[in-house]
Amino acid sequence: MPVEVLERAKWELVNWHEAGMSVMEMSHRGAEFVRIAAEAEADLRKLASIPKNYKVLFLQGGATMHFAGVPMNLLRGGRKADYVNTGEWSKKAIAEARKFCEVNVAASSEDRNFSYVPKQPTWKLSADAAYVHVCTNETIGGLEFHWTPDTGRVPLVADMSSHILSRPLDVARFGLIYAGAQKNIGPAGLVVVIVREDLLGHALPGTPNVLNYKLMADADSMLNTPPTFSVYLAGLTFKWLLEKGGLAAIEKVNVKKAGLLYGYIDSQDFYANPIAKEDRSRMNVPFTLRDASLDAKFLEGAETRGLSQLKGHRSVGGMRASIYNAMPLEGVEALVEYMEEFRKKNG
Amino acid sequence: MPVEVLERAKWELVNWHEAGMSVMEMSHRGAEFVRIAAEAEADLRKLASIPKNYKVLFLQGGATMHFAGVPMNLLRGGRKADYVNTGEWSKKAIAEARKFCEVNVAASSEDRNFSYVPKQPTWKLSADAAYVHVCTNETIGGLEFHWTPDTGRVPLVADMSSHILSRPLDVARFGLIYAGAQKNIGPAGLVVVIVREDLLGHALPGTPNVLNYKLMADADSMLNTPPTFSVYLAGLTFKWLLEKGGLAAIEKVNVKKAGLLYGYIDSQDFYANPIAKEDRSRMNVPFTLRDASLDAKFLEGAETRGLSQLKGHRSVGGMRASIYNAMPLEGVEALVEYMEEFRKKNG
Repeated sequence: MPVEVLERAKWELVNWHEAGMSVMEMSHRGAEFVRIAAEAEADLRKLASIPKNYKVLFLQGGATMHFAGVPMNLLRGGRKADYVNTGEWSKKAIAEARKFCEVNVAASSEDRNFSYVPKQPTWKLSADAAYVHVCTNETIGGLEFHWTPDTGRVPLVADMSSHILSRPLDVARFGLIYAGAQKNIGPAGLVVVIVREDLLGHALPGTPNVLNYKLMADADSMLNTPPTFSVYLAGLTFKWLLEKGGLAAIEKVNVKKAGLLYGYIDSQDFYANPIAKEDRSRMNVPFTLRDASLDAKFLEGAETRGLSQLKGHRSVGGMRASIYNAMPLEGVEALVEYMEEFRKKNG
Repeated sequence: MPVEVLERAKWELVNWHEAGMSVMEMSHRGAEFVRIAAEAEADLRKLASIPKNYKVLFLQGGATMHFAGVPMNLLRGGRKADYVNTGEWSKKAIAEARKFCEVNVAASSEDRNFSYVPKQPTWKLSADAAYVHVCTNETIGGLEFHWTPDTGRVPLVADMSSHILSRPLDVARFGLIYAGAQKNIGPAGLVVVIVREDLLGHALPGTPNVLNYKLMADADSMLNTPPTFSVYLAGLTFKWLLEKGGLAAIEKVNVKKAGLLYGYIDSQDFYANPIAKEDRSRMNVPFTLRDASLDAKFLEGAETRGLSQLKGHRSVGGMRASIYNAMPLEGVEALVEYMEEFRKKNG
């Protein structure tokens, strides 16, 4: 999270704007919190140019909860959905959807260990799919869609958890966008759903009320107590992004950060990244050392420099640099500098 | 929330224990956060003397989400559940359960506007109920169970959201206890579930993974990213309670606070509380002014003294003092003092 956001939250934590209480203690129906939530929504709408016919929901449960929430709300009488499989998060979304409908895996890059995004002409979409689901940034594999699929009249649904707000997006191309907050928005425990309103109102019978997007939209996401402090922090992050110049401005920084790291990785053969160049994630950069027996030494040296959380996901090993919006260019520069020093000593 | 907890969270917000990051930025699988979560669980187990054959889960969604989670997990092949209806929260739990099974309302106090808890001999329990559900403190009505129902071999399930940790409890008398965190535990967005482990493993087919208590128990509540900052704050609150002397000690304070306020209300006839004396909540004290046209004036005067959030729930009107664990005795004394002054001027 941006240090400016954390600093502000710190000073407002016990006594918010002289209200005599913490945001955590406010009634969610009181004037103060209603204003905080309304401002957060307005700022997000401004940031992402969200059209008026889209609802913005602040929900709970993590994106994983909404792997179920999406079919519960969007099948709309249909029995089938198309999913594109580009890695671990796609697979989890598919497994959850199979509880509710037939899933057609329209395309997959599992054949080459999820090292690329399948080009759209290879997709085998169903005529009768209720929606098409993609995970537009695979956090573990380090794969990102740098283009928006065209699914015609079938709504496109995207799990954008790990790269939302890292670049401009054209919301109108999607039926539903969802994202766990803990990468570029705020603390874990908040999920943002942006959904075209005409798709709502057909939830499956066994849908819990708080997973029913239509009921939540009608209640301004306050059918029950929302995660108030998380909404407040998300709002501070939206303001931080607006002050930075919005999504086009943060994209420039992200392009620079990713370019620096990938450029270095491609310039030598001590480190390597396995992803097709045009599909590489700007947020998550996995890389391996030529000699994996040096991994522990690499991580130890990184820690002593304050370069933390570089260990790759337990399912893939190696290293992974997560360079979300909040990571400044200097952080990536320090990483590249360390990598080069380490290579010189151990290469 | 206790001001000591908020103060500590403030100073640890940007840089937790010199870790160079906020709790919000920690990987939930990193050593630091795993320790925070394990300590929170251990402290809660100590506080509430939770037996070893009970799992403690830190989940999301609010108690409202678990109005669905309870039948999804506890029907175990059964088709019926017994519910006791003592107010607004019971009614919501019943409505949600009806999506999944037949609900037998075994007892209800709706006949007298939810002003009492039905005595157990009047309950009409079903022989084939999968469980019996009660809401042991009705936040809106101001009703509390001061005794534990005996449901024999049928598991007793309790929504304790608004009075958990306000007094000692005998967990072994319950099959499952659940509570939204935002009253006595921490910030909104966290739910604590305490469940006897032999009841788990029979979730309904359409249960989302993160609502499947067995899967969550097996994954130490980390099937997906938990609400890390909320778990951390809950842990601080548990430590605060342990330092205060635990649940027996906080109960003494709560008895004193509630006794002072109800004692005053019963001593005059300008204010009134409608609940049967033996069923009055120690946490939520609704009261009305004899002349409701003075309500706005009463609230205005209270605000100027820093006595906030006294307006009754929009569904019942009047006033409501919520005197959770974090409210010191002095807060109740100040309220009673104001009430008496107001009565003298306007009575």
